[in-house]
Amino acid sequence: MQIWRINVRTQTLTKEPVPAGWEKLGGRGLLARIMLDEVPPTCEPLGPRNKLIFAPGLLVGHMISSTDRISIGGKSPLTGGIKEANAGGRTGMHMAMMGIKALIVEDFPLGKDLWVLHLSLEGAKWQKAEGLTGLGVYDSAKELVRRYGEKVAISLIGPGGEMKMLSAGIQNIDKDRIPSRIAARGGLGAVMASKGLKAIVFDNAGGQKPPIQNLEAFRRAQKDFTAALMNHPQTALYRDYGTQAMPQMTQGFGALPTRNFSQGTFEQVETISGEHMRDLLLKRGGESDPTHACMAGCTIRCSNVFGGEDGKSIVSPLEYETVGLMGSNLGIGDLDVIARLNWQANDLGLDTIELGAALGVAADSGVFAFGDGDAALKLMDEIRAGTPLGRLLGAGAGLVGKVYGNERVPVVKNQAMSAYEPRAIKGTGVTYATTPQGADHTCGLTIRAKVNHLDPLGQAKVSLPAQLNMAGYDTLGACIFAGFGFATAPTSIPELIKARYGWDAPADYLQVLGRETIKMEREWNKQAGFTKKDDRLPEYMTREPLPPNNPVFDVSEEELDTIYDDL
Amino acid sequence: MQIWRINVRTQTLTKEPVPAGWEKLGGRGLLARIMLDEVPPTCEPLGPRNKLIFAPGLLVGHMISSTDRISIGGKSPLTGGIKEANAGGRTGMHMAMMGIKALIVEDFPLGKDLWVLHLSLEGAKWQKAEGLTGLGVYDSAKELVRRYGEKVAISLIGPGGEMKMLSAGIQNIDKDRIPSRIAARGGLGAVMASKGLKAIVFDNAGGQKPPIQNLEAFRRAQKDFTAALMNHPQTALYRDYGTQAMPQMTQGFGALPTRNFSQGTFEQVETISGEHMRDLLLKRGGESDPTHACMAGCTIRCSNVFGGEDGKSIVSPLEYETVGLMGSNLGIGDLDVIARLNWQANDLGLDTIELGAALGVAADSGVFAFGDGDAALKLMDEIRAGTPLGRLLGAGAGLVGKVYGNERVPVVKNQAMSAYEPRAIKGTGVTYATTPQGADHTCGLTIRAKVNHLDPLGQAKVSLPAQLNMAGYDTLGACIFAGFGFATAPTSIPELIKARYGWDAPADYLQVLGRETIKMEREWNKQAGFTKKDDRLPEYMTREPLPPNNPVFDVSEEELDTIYDDL
Repeated sequence: MQIWRINVRTQTLTKEPVPAGWEKLGGRGLLARIMLDEVPPTCEPLGPRNKLIFAPGLLVGHMISSTDRISIGGKSPLTGGIKEANAGGRTGMHMAMMGIKALIVEDFPLGKDLWVLHLSLEGAKWQKAEGLTGLGVYDSAKELVRRYGEKVAISLIGPGGEMKMLSAGIQNIDKDRIPSRIAARGGLGAVMASKGLKAIVFDNAGGQKPPIQNLEAFRRAQKDFTAALMNHPQTALYRDYGTQAMPQMTQGFGALPTRNFSQGTFEQVETISGEHMRDLLLKRGGESDPTHACMAGCTIRCSNVFGGEDGKSIVSPLEYETVGLMGSNLGIGDLDVIARLNWQANDLGLDTIELGAALGVAADSGVFAFGDGDAALKLMDEIRAGTPLGRLLGAGAGLVGKVYGNERVPVVKNQAMSAYEPRAIKGTGVTYATTPQGADHTCGLTIRAKVNHLDPLGQAKVSLPAQLNMAGYDTLGACIFAGFGFATAPTSIPELIKARYGWDAPADYLQVLGRETIKMEREWNKQAGFTKKDDRLPEYMTREPLPPNNPVFDVSEEELDTIYDDL
Repeated sequence: MQIWRINVRTQTLTKEPVPAGWEKLGGRGLLARIMLDEVPPTCEPLGPRNKLIFAPGLLVGHMISSTDRISIGGKSPLTGGIKEANAGGRTGMHMAMMGIKALIVEDFPLGKDLWVLHLSLEGAKWQKAEGLTGLGVYDSAKELVRRYGEKVAISLIGPGGEMKMLSAGIQNIDKDRIPSRIAARGGLGAVMASKGLKAIVFDNAGGQKPPIQNLEAFRRAQKDFTAALMNHPQTALYRDYGTQAMPQMTQGFGALPTRNFSQGTFEQVETISGEHMRDLLLKRGGESDPTHACMAGCTIRCSNVFGGEDGKSIVSPLEYETVGLMGSNLGIGDLDVIARLNWQANDLGLDTIELGAALGVAADSGVFAFGDGDAALKLMDEIRAGTPLGRLLGAGAGLVGKVYGNERVPVVKNQAMSAYEPRAIKGTGVTYATTPQGADHTCGLTIRAKVNHLDPLGQAKVSLPAQLNMAGYDTLGACIFAGFGFATAPTSIPELIKARYGWDAPADYLQVLGRETIKMEREWNKQAGFTKKDDRLPEYMTREPLPPNNPVFDVSEEELDTIYDDL
């Protein structure tokens, strides 16, 4: 494996050996290490000193179910802190097959042109993004596949990224060449634009799967893991409903974000639920598909294709986070409308969580009426046109609140919360508050923990292990749902590592990786100027009770401040 | 003297004795003390835990020339840090005559109505701001004077404040009842709106000047100070040109902000200079007045009335900061256009520095063309109408940059720089970077220091004494120009203090006050989460040379980090 370093000013590629300290890391952990070693924490996120880094997780490259994810990172222009966003799709697998341990994109372009960077074992080629600039993500991906062939992996940005919107992500094509796998959070699409890149094409021709030290042991461990995953009851649930199993569950906890996080239940939950969606898709048929895999080899198939009444795909996938943030959070109970909003956000290349939250604050500030799907869809046109309002919405929830003088903004470190209300699931509130990434459920969701989610006491002890596990999975390249398998067959992680790399890994290797990763991220953020004062939920959530159960967020500041003390 | 405490929820006034630790402070120093004692540094600036505080300086109440200023403060919604903004006009004098050492406005209003709070020796009266809400500052002030009489002092906000714009200030009427004395910086107008207040009326009927321990000594010291002030050569200069003496001077240093701080000289400097302005006003006559006093008793009369060709006043005053930020910084060389922009900003109740900088970033981002005065004036209409673009501009330069993905934003702690380019006057750059207030020339301008302003070495030693002096003046209630007198007759400060209060003050009392004030402000900001990383100029200024002399800002981070070490 090598480090590939791209300088966008000189348009050169350098291939370097992997430094000793980077060898045993991948994905999110490796990003944190590279950030600490190379990126000045006080740098301007959209300036020449920031870097955009791609790193597949440690287990990527062999189609172990749900473990071929790509981590993308840099300094976030949204939070000002360290950022890792990960995604499924092809990119991780292709990079592993090309022997790229990490791709580091650095410096500043000389002109204002956007480029397509084509990487293959023969090196780097640069082509102006003519015919692509300004194009939506779907058409861009189609054209890139036409130009570069059906076998490549592609990471690309949309019009939102090109406009350097702080909610812009980086999309990756999936096994069907649909560009719907977005490293969504924290504005990395804007960083990619600041480097002058519309797309990176990974052509793995001539590449091969990474070497395995002990193939027999590897296959054995993989089999154990897959069996555990297949037999886990959650897997079956997610196979039927995907993440859309969630609306009824969060509703039950009074934790379904509704109308800009002002209520925890939504009167139209039935029509946005996974059960309803599955029935709808089965009835509609055509391109509709309630169970769909995002990566080759995945056995969970949590994804879906949401087709309209005519059976044609509206968007793929429609996930719970989007349904929560662009549905109940906007007072919208119609899945077809939500699916159209989702397609627009995808095509613009924007994070549906941040955008849904921004729209929620906008509605709360009088920009449009909650429940008015047509108005919400028109706002997507404003974003595409780059009008002042469109640009503001693309800049995320925090800025909408500041511009409209509205303090009711569900963000931490200026990043929007996911679709779990922290007053009603306080452990997840602790995660939102304390993770170095800014509010993010994938940094440690606690909804399945067997605790009283309304109790303010002890939630740090619920959040911390979840945070460590997730940072570990993100370092391995494993999907959050792979956790169902690893939880039941925990020895399979050190076994897979030992078999692939020959490293002796301890039984708690997942937590070891998670601990090391979070430590590095916290250190980087500290050097960037973050303090404990940044580890807080918005003040109004500590003051305003959340109907119907009326909790406030009352986990003590001391608990928040000491959560990592024994890290 | 008493502390008057207003609860906006219960609409009650409590009069309290002055706590021991507050007695020997006034103005900016007293604000810092109250903030430390009462306002949680992590509070939401527009939430119920923030407070809005008014405090006249220690020397206010006897019409000593240029020393009757009012300090207004709280947690800034613009910077997130401690904020003191001060102004001339009547408010300080009236409060002193009413025996109010500080007015503390706290809590949250129950409804969404705006109110007029009338304070007199008889107590507090509340009246709904009917007929005033949405009205510009000039018409609001006129109507308030009609309702409450010609003798009152008034602090009020305009439509910008009502919309909680982060560049909204609080205006004070002057001796002519013109509401042009704005405590401009840091968004305190938005804080006032969040407390449900459109205006505070100070009715000093029955009040009297504060007691003086030794009247004879007081008169003697006052005479010394006034003589020193009158004889100072700068006083004569400011009497002729006011702050408008500056454009030719900053142009000479290559430090006149031009086209969003991208150049240090402006090819149309002649037509925005003080010399040109004075000639113009003398020629035009009518209401035009090149030398005008903002407070009763001021002998400098640095202010002016800018009349149009028909002799009718366009705006009063037109100051250098506005000419720099809304003139050269926007590529506009026509004083009549600048005066109209200034009137609009005043009537909206916005800080012309922040707004000029926001317009500069907007022009730099393609929103309108540099030099297009008509377009700039139309944008003022957008602000008044509260359109998304108008609201964004009102939110200040930093947010415009974030929304347009433009890193070329002249702010520190999210507050816009004044009309002194820090690459060309590096001592002032050190002040911008390190003052707890965010970029602000009134916290320590160094342009008159006899040093090489382009030399990166030793600038902390130039900035620090200027910062201490200014914090001292702001605590005394003295205008920056009073410094000309105090510098020549330095003993007059301890003499005035001793005569008025009976306190033995050391010879360096000004610096003692300044030191104590800045220490408290830094402590508060630290508790709010500020670190050394916040004491930085924008990265592009350390990278992009400034024509024509092509300096970058290259004062070392170590120098910035150690400036207060011996405080």
